[in-house]
Amino acid sequence: MSIYIAIDIGGTQMRAAAFPIEGYDPIRVQKIPTHSPNASPQERLILLIKSVCPENETINSIGVAAPGPMNPKTGVIYTAPNIAEFRDFALTDYLENEFQVPAFLDNDANLAALGEWLIGAGKGHDHLLYFTISTGIGSGIIVDGKLLHGESGIAAELGHVTVLPDGPICGCGHPGHLEALASGKNIARWVKKELAKGVESTLRNAKKVTAKRIAKAAKKGDPLAIMAFERAGEHIGLALASFLHAFNPSIVVFGGGVSLSGDLLLEPIRRSVKNHVMNSKFTDNLVITTAALGDDAGMIGALILARTAIEQ
Amino acid sequence: MSIYIAIDIGGTQMRAAAFPIEGYDPIRVQKIPTHSPNASPQERLILLIKSVCPENETINSIGVAAPGPMNPKTGVIYTAPNIAEFRDFALTDYLENEFQVPAFLDNDANLAALGEWLIGAGKGHDHLLYFTISTGIGSGIIVDGKLLHGESGIAAELGHVTVLPDGPICGCGHPGHLEALASGKNIARWVKKELAKGVESTLRNAKKVTAKRIAKAAKKGDPLAIMAFERAGEHIGLALASFLHAFNPSIVVFGGGVSLSGDLLLEPIRRSVKNHVMNSKFTDNLVITTAALGDDAGMIGALILARTAIEQ
Repeated sequence: MSIYIAIDIGGTQMRAAAFPIEGYDPIRVQKIPTHSPNASPQERLILLIKSVCPENETINSIGVAAPGPMNPKTGVIYTAPNIAEFRDFALTDYLENEFQVPAFLDNDANLAALGEWLIGAGKGHDHLLYFTISTGIGSGIIVDGKLLHGESGIAAELGHVTVLPDGPICGCGHPGHLEALASGKNIARWVKKELAKGVESTLRNAKKVTAKRIAKAAKKGDPLAIMAFERAGEHIGLALASFLHAFNPSIVVFGGGVSLSGDLLLEPIRRSVKNHVMNSKFTDNLVITTAALGDDAGMIGALILARTAIEQ
Repeated sequence: MSIYIAIDIGGTQMRAAAFPIEGYDPIRVQKIPTHSPNASPQERLILLIKSVCPENETINSIGVAAPGPMNPKTGVIYTAPNIAEFRDFALTDYLENEFQVPAFLDNDANLAALGEWLIGAGKGHDHLLYFTISTGIGSGIIVDGKLLHGESGIAAELGHVTVLPDGPICGCGHPGHLEALASGKNIARWVKKELAKGVESTLRNAKKVTAKRIAKAAKKGDPLAIMAFERAGEHIGLALASFLHAFNPSIVVFGGGVSLSGDLLLEPIRRSVKNHVMNSKFTDNLVITTAALGDDAGMIGALILARTAIEQ
């Protein structure tokens, strides 16, 4: 028997799984912290893969989901947030050299989109937008049943479109990007600012004001917390209307930690997008929903990448 | 011998040409006003096609470029600006019924993008954005060497993305769309407003303030006219940076009347887009240029559609 290896690399932990030729039930799964005083993330990645690879098994190929700008065609990571060692790192060359099997790389949001499209919430849709709303906002785009990579593989950065030209500064340094208005970190930032202004809220007693904590307060009726999700949903909906005009998808899938708040975020998005589309044909048959694969989306996508890339 | 018929329908005139099996030199070209007191645009379209079709020739297929929202898959025009008779009009069925040959329809900006991509300014590029900047702003998008149509064929409306949420109202009724800030009509609208405020300009003596007239004044050094193009270019560049983040194209082509002003518009766009991209990788190898096919782009696109659609 032979297997596929799928890997999901994050700034704090790396996960790997061995999968059989068919199906989506892993044979072995393992996760380890990305950083350790004794070994580089590169070395730890090799150990991690070896730990999930059963003896006497042949690896067919390796698929890797990683964050940050990269070139999926060349397998080079330009920069990875919180992994300084991965700057301009030829990851697939490194793995191919070590394991002597083909290795493939793509952006984690792209691969999550691929996973949701093939076996998740987006099954059966040829035109899909996927957003992961967590600390930042990542995205993946399926056009005509294929991931949109663009000329050099850096397309689909929908978290970095300008929504409010005079809005708050984004992590990337530019004003008013969607991420700066509606990511988990920025929802929390806005609430903290309102609290500092003296706005009344049960969140005043919270140890730490996070998007998760705010969602909890909103579900209990806290007006400031509700307002925070309304505001994020309004901005996402405004941007989404523009994305619908550009891509005319049949489904929009929201994943990532903040999307676990469900209708608290989705309802304001649906209202906002209806207000902002130029023509109801863009929303008539549109599905706006939450992701089905949860934290596994990136790894499932990496598996699909590993399987399909060697078939081509 | 057999021929292909290509048609470009506009609100004021319709053009048709007969083309041979190969090449882009028409055998016959004809144009007529879209409207006449004696016949409907539908009837005139039939006469127009017959007028360019040489006797004893067999028509292989007919390709049609038309404005406004439509479904290219079904060949139905939903609405066409300035052609009330074309509301919910099954154009390809109508032509197929009349000529007993396959007919194909697409948006004029999509087909201009296709023409520029295959034999115009965008030759050799797999990822292209095309904008026609005239009265309004239309666009066509090539992803992986294929027109982006979206789920129901209404994608690529990049003139209708929100650039300034509190900006001027667009023709479609929504505030701050790119078209409302930078189309020819809206460049002129802005200048007229400035003139009404009392701003000094040689345009004060102009019979009619149009984008063409403003471009002429700008080339002679008129500060208000220059400012009008700077402002349009700044807004287009801001939107374009977001489009680069979404699509990561290798070329952006500007067509339409206003693009004839050349660097007057393109230089401010290039400056603005550099200021607004999150990462220079999005502009490193990017070409920003004007269209090569001029007014023929739509018809050439319609020809390509007619030829390739029957091959599939």
